[in-house]
Amino acid sequence: MNLAEKYKQIRKYSEQICEPLETEDYVVQPVVDVSPPKWHLGHTTWFFETFILKPNVFNYKEFDVNYNYVFNSYYETIGNRVIRTDRGNLSRPSVNDVYKYRAYVDEAMIGFLSAEVPPELTELVVLGFNHEQQHQELLLSDIKYILGNNPLFPTYSAEWKDIEQDTAAPTFIDFSGGIHEIGFNGSDFCFDNELGQHQVYLQPFSISSQLVTNNEYLDFINDGGYQNFNYWHAEGWDWVQTNKINSPMYWHFIDGQWFCYTLNGLQTLKPNDTLTHISYYEAYAFASWKGMRLPTEFEWEIAAKSFNWGQRWEWTESAYLPYPGFSKAPGAIGEYNGKFMVNQKVLRGASVATPQNHSRITYRNFFHPHLRWQFTGIRLAK
Amino acid sequence: MNLAEKYKQIRKYSEQICEPLETEDYVVQPVVDVSPPKWHLGHTTWFFETFILKPNVFNYKEFDVNYNYVFNSYYETIGNRVIRTDRGNLSRPSVNDVYKYRAYVDEAMIGFLSAEVPPELTELVVLGFNHEQQHQELLLSDIKYILGNNPLFPTYSAEWKDIEQDTAAPTFIDFSGGIHEIGFNGSDFCFDNELGQHQVYLQPFSISSQLVTNNEYLDFINDGGYQNFNYWHAEGWDWVQTNKINSPMYWHFIDGQWFCYTLNGLQTLKPNDTLTHISYYEAYAFASWKGMRLPTEFEWEIAAKSFNWGQRWEWTESAYLPYPGFSKAPGAIGEYNGKFMVNQKVLRGASVATPQNHSRITYRNFFHPHLRWQFTGIRLAK
Amino acid sequence: MNLAEKYKQIRKYSEQICEPLETEDYVVQPVVDVSPPKWHLGHTTWFFETFILKPNVFNYKEFDVNYNYVFNSYYETIGNRVIRTDRGNLSRPSVNDVYKYRAYVDEAMIGFLSAEVPPELTELVVLGFNHEQQHQELLLSDIKYILGNNPLFPTYSAEWKDIEQDTAAPTFIDFSGGIHEIGFNGSDFCFDNELGQHQVYLQPFSISSQLVTNNEYLDFINDGGYQNFNYWHAEGWDWVQTNKINSPMYWHFIDGQWFCYTLNGLQTLKPNDTLTHISYYEAYAFASWKGMRLPTEFEWEIAAKSFNWGQRWEWTESAYLPYPGFSKAPGAIGEYNGKFMVNQKVLRGASVATPQNHSRITYRNFFHPHLRWQFTGIRLAK
Amino acid sequence: MNLAEKYKQIRKYSEQICEPLETEDYVVQPVVDVSPPKWHLGHTTWFFETFILKPNVFNYKEFDVNYNYVFNSYYETIGNRVIRTDRGNLSRPSVNDVYKYRAYVDEAMIGFLSAEVPPELTELVVLGFNHEQQHQELLLSDIKYILGNNPLFPTYSAEWKDIEQDTAAPTFIDFSGGIHEIGFNGSDFCFDNELGQHQVYLQPFSISSQLVTNNEYLDFINDGGYQNFNYWHAEGWDWVQTNKINSPMYWHFIDGQWFCYTLNGLQTLKPNDTLTHISYYEAYAFASWKGMRLPTEFEWEIAAKSFNWGQRWEWTESAYLPYPGFSKAPGAIGEYNGKFMVNQKVLRGASVATPQNHSRITYRNFFHPHLRWQFTGIRLAK
Repeated sequence: MNLAEKYKQIRKYSEQICEPLETEDYVVQPVVDVSPPKWHLGHTTWFFETFILKPNVFNYKEFDVNYNYVFNSYYETIGNRVIRTDRGNLSRPSVNDVYKYRAYVDEAMIGFLSAEVPPELTELVVLGFNHEQQHQELLLSDIKYILGNNPLFPTYSAEWKDIEQDTAAPTFIDFSGGIHEIGFNGSDFCFDNELGQHQVYLQPFSISSQLVTNNEYLDFINDGGYQNFNYWHAEGWDWVQTNKINSPMYWHFIDGQWFCYTLNGLQTLKPNDTLTHISYYEAYAFASWKGMRLPTEFEWEIAAKSFNWGQRWEWTESAYLPYPGFSKAPGAIGEYNGKFMVNQKVLRGASVATPQNHSRITYRNFFHPHLRWQFTGIRLAK
Repeated sequence: MNLAEKYKQIRKYSEQICEPLETEDYVVQPVVDVSPPKWHLGHTTWFFETFILKPNVFNYKEFDVNYNYVFNSYYETIGNRVIRTDRGNLSRPSVNDVYKYRAYVDEAMIGFLSAEVPPELTELVVLGFNHEQQHQELLLSDIKYILGNNPLFPTYSAEWKDIEQDTAAPTFIDFSGGIHEIGFNGSDFCFDNELGQHQVYLQPFSISSQLVTNNEYLDFINDGGYQNFNYWHAEGWDWVQTNKINSPMYWHFIDGQWFCYTLNGLQTLKPNDTLTHISYYEAYAFASWKGMRLPTEFEWEIAAKSFNWGQRWEWTESAYLPYPGFSKAPGAIGEYNGKFMVNQKVLRGASVATPQNHSRITYRNFFHPHLRWQFTGIRLAK
Repeated sequence: MNLAEKYKQIRKYSEQICEPLETEDYVVQPVVDVSPPKWHLGHTTWFFETFILKPNVFNYKEFDVNYNYVFNSYYETIGNRVIRTDRGNLSRPSVNDVYKYRAYVDEAMIGFLSAEVPPELTELVVLGFNHEQQHQELLLSDIKYILGNNPLFPTYSAEWKDIEQDTAAPTFIDFSGGIHEIGFNGSDFCFDNELGQHQVYLQPFSISSQLVTNNEYLDFINDGGYQNFNYWHAEGWDWVQTNKINSPMYWHFIDGQWFCYTLNGLQTLKPNDTLTHISYYEAYAFASWKGMRLPTEFEWEIAAKSFNWGQRWEWTESAYLPYPGFSKAPGAIGEYNGKFMVNQKVLRGASVATPQNHSRITYRNFFHPHLRWQFTGIRLAK
Repeated sequence: MNLAEKYKQIRKYSEQICEPLETEDYVVQPVVDVSPPKWHLGHTTWFFETFILKPNVFNYKEFDVNYNYVFNSYYETIGNRVIRTDRGNLSRPSVNDVYKYRAYVDEAMIGFLSAEVPPELTELVVLGFNHEQQHQELLLSDIKYILGNNPLFPTYSAEWKDIEQDTAAPTFIDFSGGIHEIGFNGSDFCFDNELGQHQVYLQPFSISSQLVTNNEYLDFINDGGYQNFNYWHAEGWDWVQTNKINSPMYWHFIDGQWFCYTLNGLQTLKPNDTLTHISYYEAYAFASWKGMRLPTEFEWEIAAKSFNWGQRWEWTESAYLPYPGFSKAPGAIGEYNGKFMVNQKVLRGASVATPQNHSRITYRNFFHPHLRWQFTGIRLAK
């Protein structure tokens, strides 16, 4: 597929994700980690306008100069108008205006991509594609948060399908120790944090062929897992106490029965479904309770050819750190990954919300250990 | 006008206030004191449904049982579904659904009011009218906050008119001391906090015939009023320091010139306009700087026949306290006023946002001393 | 008694209060409203050094120039050394150094007072006496807080005696309405907030001859007073919920029995003792539950000749506001009272911790409505 | 040296560290990371009483049953007396009482150690030695914080000597890549987090022979290092902005000159001294600005035989994670290290405050990335 076609396809998918929404759903920001859907739609557009159109298209006329500080990831002050705003406080630009902005930039981009694009700009455009795909995943998880924390529990879409459960019996797959190659080594797109293929030395390890199910996690809950500090990191235990956590996000215990909010609405909990929406702290505590551990990201990368993956982001034991020789690209693009390499954990795999073909075996996702609103899961190792 | 006609008129005005809004403007809550417009529309409807229709209309079918905890002033937990929500996080019910809710309740109410209404219910219905009128004022001030804190500074309506400035020269009117009658003593509606007409003894005082203008307040600013702790209460000074306050709300100093956000959009500051959007702390500091003081609510009530009032809520020196013999009505209606009688200041008069005929000379409005989003102003006394 | 003798007597009493303390007790500050005892000893000394000695004694040599910002009520930055400190973080100056500071200033003051003192300075010295007496009361309440919140519950002194309980049966004393004189009108010392004797008009009222006892308050607790929002101000109810309040300060329910920390150590609660250490919120809620109310400060002042008072500070319904004609003295002394006249409630009477002859019938004490560490109590009115 | 002698020597050194203190210095806790010196003295004593004496000495009589929740690392509620306390709020037990507690436990411990001690208890006693040595380091850094944040800048001791500066010219030492052995492999004491000697694969690297000096860091400051977000992690940049950081801890810019608080008091900054008291965020930003990076803990362990170390704790790029095969010991002792293995960075080496022979080449110290009150430093790698 050529660049312009690819552009159209990816841009359209963002809007398809939002089709089931009411206008009001585009606007709210219930917690700081969630962004309003209209912000995602505007911000991904701002990326193409700012990094491709404005520097490279002669006489390009900015859609609205004020959008620069509405849709920039970091709100800045412009001139003397110092106004501190949170994304969820902004009723304007309206959803209609955001769609007009998208149409305006899309037209200019398709024009631009239909001509010859020099290689270094192609690279930047492809980065824009991947950037938009990351926001597509966030759109879905943020929409779930917005609807799932509304006391009316609205359904996103009756057509939404969560994963097909793998019914094969779980086994542990053994790997011998020694030197392994880690990191991306292809010619297609990858993020800078995957680069620098290099050798690591691993001890022998075993890893589960399956992800943990709701049923297995219920055993942890029923065995008092949330009440016993021995299974938890000190910070995890603080998090449990402070936030009165006693189950995964979106679980509700009503009249003696477990329910679970899904994009299909509030449902009785299905025991054989794959567990999701747990923090790293919970993943670690569950593994401790099992007498096992989480895999490192290197173990995962070596083992992943031997099992199915891709329906949950899998917490690893690894901290998000630079690979040997990592260096940031100069300029704004260089801010993409490197500056987040502290206090976060690596997740591997992909989730039901990840756009098709967006992830790969070397892909390094990362979140703070207390976050749960992504479609996260647990794979045990020992 | 009969009750049903009055009902229709008042209910319609709430919707007229919202006519210029985009759907998105109905949803957001930028600070805790501001409520989303759709919440005001729903909450005033919930009042009639809860206190009139449900207890008094045979076989009345609630519009939606969940609205009870969405539109109640105090979010409560329902059964086992403990979900803490802030009003600004709720994208649902949608604006359309809220208007459907209004139409549904209006139909039932008009039916109810078209038959004979017993006197004690008439009283409750009239309380509902006044309740809705108070929310009409809040609708306007909240809408101003929502639009005026948006970096795009959207105009509410080009037709909006702020007050006609009184151009008469200000004078001080003298009143002799002695015993005066205070409080409501009529047969029309009043709030319980105005009741109990009683005598107070006042010292002789003088009060200004006019409200303070922007120009006079600019003198205070230019004389370093925000930098000199001597003019301020200790708590006022903390408030100035902590929040870096250096002008009234909605004022912006851009490129050496003062601008002011109004419901007509961002405008250059008009020096002769009546000052508005200042806190009690600022009103007190300004009076101190002038070598004067604010009137007490009793002085104001005695003097108000001698000057024009009604375009700004006027901060008084009085704390909001019960009149002699005040007692709360039993039940939920009794929560209306009495429970707020601590740590608040009385404001007298009415503002440009107050519905016609809603206020009167004995009316006691009240807010915390740091709040500025209402159309507040200053009248000096000595 | 001459000024020098009076000075010695008052200064000595501050040190006598601290005699039972360990050095460590002088240092800590468990909450922001409590100051370390050594700070009180230093601050009262700094007052005499700053306002009497430095401006009036030729060649007076400051004890330590740094003490100015250690013992000033408002920590300020000195030159370029910007260090934000809390009083409880300061291990130095040591307790020994503070006593040396007191001895040094005392010697200079006694020399100064032994000569002729001009009238305006006499006034300032007498203000210093009253200032130190106010800190003597704070010393006792702060020491009680420091020891009473230590898990070892140390005894302050076995000799400490709380009040003798008045065993006369409580009655309600009736007062007729009309004009009464309020405020100080003598030639002795009073604070500026009592000045301006003036007339007020009161409605007829009744007031209790006795303060509320522990027993009566236990009835409120046992009747669910802390669980029923109807008795509380909205802010009081928030305070109860947020801080999980279910009894007066220093009460502990241990193994089915009520205990109470006193300056004699932890004791079983004596039911006939006068209730103390309750907030205004609690006083109001208790009165509501009784179907009565708190007196205003004017009612209290008129009625106080008819009952015994002086063992508890009695919460009134009145907000702390200026009397007619109140004006602040120029300079630092003017900061004494006026700047606190917002968001506080007036207390009348005196407590077991108040130095003898410090209070009087026109004395206006004031605290924020949530505070409980003073020896506060309740007198009912209706 | 036998166990009893070793015990005496180590216990005595804790008290020697405190010899220069005033009683008041033992009591305060200016920030949550700092503990009052008397708490360290009590807590290390509580360790021996709780884990050695109470379970193993027949008829041992606890010194004071209440000390259990005063000196436990985690304050717990005892029975019905639920009192939440912070360490810095506790004036009791007094310093004298804490020394009595030490003497009492020391006598019992010396008796116990003079008889035959079974091997598993010997291990626990040696853990107690190392535990006390860790608190000796904390005693020094906490005392520095207490005195260095006092506006009087008291001297700890004129005899205190910071490090001798290595005057050799810095060079970069090269190491080839390949497989290396990491972790403790001896028969002496080590912590559980060093255990599991294992192989790692390293890329070739270079590491500096010297630590960064004040002078080099001043270049970073003067080049605007604290004003350029490009050098910082996103969280580091937030930390700089929120806390208005513009220099290492204890540096003060007074009248155009840099000063530095040391345990000898406030001094002019010595440019050739080894930089200390910087956070990981600052270490990372400095390395970025240099175009270099921090070493990993594995690189450091391999290289450390080739340079002098031991005067500063050296921040590494490595997150604090378990070594392969790590498992927690059962019971309270197992809480020692494992539960902290999230969101912290590894520091290697030892500082001027580390007791002699306490550290070693495999020692893994760890702190949160924002902390600066330890004697931390920077060694560059590339």
